[in-house]
Amino acid sequence: MPQVSVRNRLVEHAEAVFRRNGFSGASIQDLTQAAGVPKGSFYNHFESKQDLAAEIVTCYVRAIDFSPLTGSGPAVERLREHLIAQIERIRAYGTEFGCLLGSFANDGALVGEKVRTSVREALASWADAIGATIEEGQAAGEITTRRSATALAAFLLDLLQGATLRARISEADTFLADEVSIALDALRV
Amino acid sequence: MPQVSVRNRLVEHAEAVFRRNGFSGASIQDLTQAAGVPKGSFYNHFESKQDLAAEIVTCYVRAIDFSPLTGSGPAVERLREHLIAQIERIRAYGTEFGCLLGSFANDGALVGEKVRTSVREALASWADAIGATIEEGQAAGEITTRRSATALAAFLLDLLQGATLRARISEADTFLADEVSIALDALRV
Repeated sequence: MPQVSVRNRLVEHAEAVFRRNGFSGASIQDLTQAAGVPKGSFYNHFESKQDLAAEIVTCYVRAIDFSPLTGSGPAVERLREHLIAQIERIRAYGTEFGCLLGSFANDGALVGEKVRTSVREALASWADAIGATIEEGQAAGEITTRRSATALAAFLLDLLQGATLRARISEADTFLADEVSIALDALRV
Repeated sequence: MPQVSVRNRLVEHAEAVFRRNGFSGASIQDLTQAAGVPKGSFYNHFESKQDLAAEIVTCYVRAIDFSPLTGSGPAVERLREHLIAQIERIRAYGTEFGCLLGSFANDGALVGEKVRTSVREALASWADAIGATIEEGQAAGEITTRRSATALAAFLLDLLQGATLRARISEADTFLADEVSIALDALRV
């Protein structure tokens, strides 16, 4: 019977390996070595590298702090707090490694359909959470109604991804908070 | 003496290979095979895969149509025309392959310093061109002066990258033009 702790260790360490090596560059050996488990144990726990990657995406989204979005202050300030927290998370991990969802999205067909589906669902649920706050802001007259909450939520997420990508290549991240502010300008009534 | 036509063929076909396979996934054999040249000829023309990739980045930026930016109409409309043209270019190539600069940026340290420098320079010169149009719009009172032209230009490019990335993973691209419009809302006075 597969050991639970081996599985947990694989999940716990896989994010770092995928971020550093990319999906294609992360070998089963890299993943088992980072977790400190025997190489042969991998397939006792996962059918494939795709399987593990899809689970990592789920873990990544589960760890997003959505609580600022559901507070009681002005919607734009709640959105700002949430987005700044994402920037802090990326910075804490190392700006040079970018966002895991962005990385997998960028790997295109190489990551396989299971991971792509997982990333799509992750982005959709994230956009839903942001969209709910935008709707509250629209109802309160704080956010423009010329655009749908869905479109504005996707816009904010896309800007965050693009800015994270530039931070990754430019090896600078001081501009990120200002860029979030510019994006929020687009929500003005 | 290395044949010029072999070199040209490698450059001509490399973009497609890098887009499809990613940097890490593109082997020398993939590159020579796509170009229809002998595998052994590669190193007569390029020191490394990095060398070729850096040249492809330069070609990619040289092929950007900057002419809409330097027209005489309202600055925001010139920016829109330029950004829409980029979307059309990505769409013509296949939305699922994303933007070459974004792909390389997202490969992080894996692509090597030469390619990273090339991408940084490419993004900087692109942002400069966009920034010049924004400055004209600011001088004409059409674009907000609460933000610097440099910051607004980077914001527009980042949004384009992020939106392209979402189009890539979602396999949809009809939202791109609307998203450019939302971004341009942020430039309003």
